[in-house]
Amino acid sequence: MASPAAPSAVVLLSGGLDSATVLAIARNQGFTCHALSVDYGQRHVAELAAAAVISQALGAAGHRTVRLDLAQFGGSALTDRSIAVPVGGVQPGIPVTYVPARNTIMLSLAMAWAETLGARDIFIGVNAVDYSGYPDCRPEFIEAFEAMANLATRAAIEGARTAIHTPVIDLAKADIVRRGLLLGVDYAITVSCYQADEDGRACGECDACRLRRAGFVDAGVADPTRYR
Amino acid sequence: MASPAAPSAVVLLSGGLDSATVLAIARNQGFTCHALSVDYGQRHVAELAAAAVISQALGAAGHRTVRLDLAQFGGSALTDRSIAVPVGGVQPGIPVTYVPARNTIMLSLAMAWAETLGARDIFIGVNAVDYSGYPDCRPEFIEAFEAMANLATRAAIEGARTAIHTPVIDLAKADIVRRGLLLGVDYAITVSCYQADEDGRACGECDACRLRRAGFVDAGVADPTRYR
Repeated sequence: MASPAAPSAVVLLSGGLDSATVLAIARNQGFTCHALSVDYGQRHVAELAAAAVISQALGAAGHRTVRLDLAQFGGSALTDRSIAVPVGGVQPGIPVTYVPARNTIMLSLAMAWAETLGARDIFIGVNAVDYSGYPDCRPEFIEAFEAMANLATRAAIEGARTAIHTPVIDLAKADIVRRGLLLGVDYAITVSCYQADEDGRACGECDACRLRRAGFVDAGVADPTRYR
Repeated sequence: MASPAAPSAVVLLSGGLDSATVLAIARNQGFTCHALSVDYGQRHVAELAAAAVISQALGAAGHRTVRLDLAQFGGSALTDRSIAVPVGGVQPGIPVTYVPARNTIMLSLAMAWAETLGARDIFIGVNAVDYSGYPDCRPEFIEAFEAMANLATRAAIEGARTAIHTPVIDLAKADIVRRGLLLGVDYAITVSCYQADEDGRACGECDACRLRRAGFVDAGVADPTRYR
């Protein structure tokens, strides 16, 4: 393993607002960041294109995209085109946009890359405020994943600890925006919309768009999102 | 979710001896089995072809293969062609054939499919006897994964428990062979070799071949493996 001056971290980067902010936070903490995106058959492929741009803009050391056909399992509005993306505001319970085991799978892939890089730190932009209905955005899930990771790998056997960092898990969207702006994130290049068009322009109506827009309004800053 | 007469299970099926036996065990326990293979860029693609044949022969209700490019992360002799597969007998420590986070990733994918199927049971053919150097074949890893899974999914939120079954984890290879033969497994169609040729014929020299051959010898049965 190379031993760079700065410790390495793997940062899960969807191309959305939250994960872009998390990349900026990880860089600000002094990590050499390796950005990882997962193409799991989601509708919003424009997010993946945005991830490559964000990764460069925020100074990641590298960016990889793993393709993975979760759509063949079905069960989510984000991967199954026969299920409509909700546009009527956030409902109680687990939303149809929940993708089974998504964060578990993405963290597992981050573990694999971290192990070959010799990295001990993984960052993920989960948020338990806006996505309170998602089981795998809760702090107790992250803690259990970290405990499992510390038994799963070569590094664990050799006594090194892996940490899963969730720096925006308990922040309101407006606070995430404020934090990112302080760190120089250009939110115009991020894409959050569940049904963005090929150019990354947002619908303005889905849950992700509503939460995002409210974040800029609450933070008292202009919304740089490109709407169609 | 459909509610079939028999409960459904997802069975991870590599195409090798251990996972074929596990499928037979799960069927014997009365589960409707959904076999899942993962094409993670491993050298031994003949195993994946074998998995389809085994899945049919042992009466699985279905078989899916998820493609996933773990080779881009490197770090294992099984996915990186610049690292030689060892043929000199089992060495102490973690072997170069260890694939970072492999079982974590495969179990995560099984979780995703189980959730959309409404299945609460996942079977995996890990073995802590032969693969004692692999961190993710240990019982403590499986327990931690199960604990995490029970916080990660919609089913967990709704109060249903997911169980990770490892019916061959503490069996010697000869005992696995004996169990499988009693359940009607045709080991001639299984492929364990780390460097099998395209027709699934084994090298007879790698660690996987040595362990497998010793299993048949110790069980006192003829070795049906097709060697090249």
